[in-house]
Amino acid sequence: MEDCYMERLEQRIQKDGLVKAGNVLKVDSFLNHQVDVALLEEMGAEFHRLFGHKPITKILTIEASGIAIAVAAARYFQVPVVFAKKSQSINLDGESYSVKIESFTHQRVYDVIVSKKYLSQADHVLIIDDFLARGKALEGLIALIQAAGATVEGIGIAVEKGFQGGGDAIRARGFHLESLAIVERMDEKTGQIYFRR
Amino acid sequence: MEDCYMERLEQRIQKDGLVKAGNVLKVDSFLNHQVDVALLEEMGAEFHRLFGHKPITKILTIEASGIAIAVAAARYFQVPVVFAKKSQSINLDGESYSVKIESFTHQRVYDVIVSKKYLSQADHVLIIDDFLARGKALEGLIALIQAAGATVEGIGIAVEKGFQGGGDAIRARGFHLESLAIVERMDEKTGQIYFRR
Repeated sequence: MEDCYMERLEQRIQKDGLVKAGNVLKVDSFLNHQVDVALLEEMGAEFHRLFGHKPITKILTIEASGIAIAVAAARYFQVPVVFAKKSQSINLDGESYSVKIESFTHQRVYDVIVSKKYLSQADHVLIIDDFLARGKALEGLIALIQAAGATVEGIGIAVEKGFQGGGDAIRARGFHLESLAIVERMDEKTGQIYFRR
Repeated sequence: MEDCYMERLEQRIQKDGLVKAGNVLKVDSFLNHQVDVALLEEMGAEFHRLFGHKPITKILTIEASGIAIAVAAARYFQVPVVFAKKSQSINLDGESYSVKIESFTHQRVYDVIVSKKYLSQADHVLIIDDFLARGKALEGLIALIQAAGATVEGIGIAVEKGFQGGGDAIRARGFHLESLAIVERMDEKTGQIYFRR
């Protein structure tokens, strides 16, 4: 995993990440409420280093907080970004691929959709997202791509909570998944965060 | 308005925008479902040309589709992006500024919040958003900034539907608002789109 180790991100998580009860890691101050644009740039460049040799035609993410990182990465790949949309009251008009995703954070099930116009059999897709825990959102995005007959070329995640198992389950299915930082353990009392090596 | 005229965006709206019943203009193919990253870069540069002389400390947008443009702009300004979050079931814990915004598109009222940690009296804020129609979202963002005691330095919008009046009402309040394209009239039958000159 040395290849995808990004020291500055780990340091930032260590410094500004907040460990909360219930295995919650908050990175609101630099990643998903306020966004540090310089860090975003570095993450985009790193995703390009990791996946730039693949024939990527599109980057797929899910609203809302994946969009910032996906756009930062897309600048290096020079391909369009598509963001899957969350909805609770969807018009299933046959013009979209849709999947149900259970949100751990919000204790809710979303319909997530992508218009059929923006994913096709010809697409080679890089999935980008900010967070990976149990992997429900990611499994949903993979299902959308497969429904379109497109190819999942790779998956780039900013922060993976390794101890929740979602990432390893997806790796075990044979997908090329790279996380820029993998949290192995967090201590709610001390706030200490331990990374996978 | 010559200063903020961006020919490529108008051409793209003319070519790929879809005029739907009820004054709806869909720009899903390049702005708010699939995103053209090269166009996004140009918009970011243009916002910097328009507002780069101001002492901007932060860019504020609202999830989800404002995030892409805000991040593209922030790269030129080298300031953090903050995105206000929509929620229907919010914990009002006193740690956030919040405002209610009525969505025309979704016929719904959202609570929109920004953590008090990310907006302060010292901030000079540039608001960036993809769309401006009746201006409800924008009025809400202005209210959040004012609740924080921060300064609204400017407002940059990608596509304004001028005939819905929201933009002109905000200009009349004295805010420096620039839209990269202002649609003055749309013809549902022919699909023709007319821009403000």
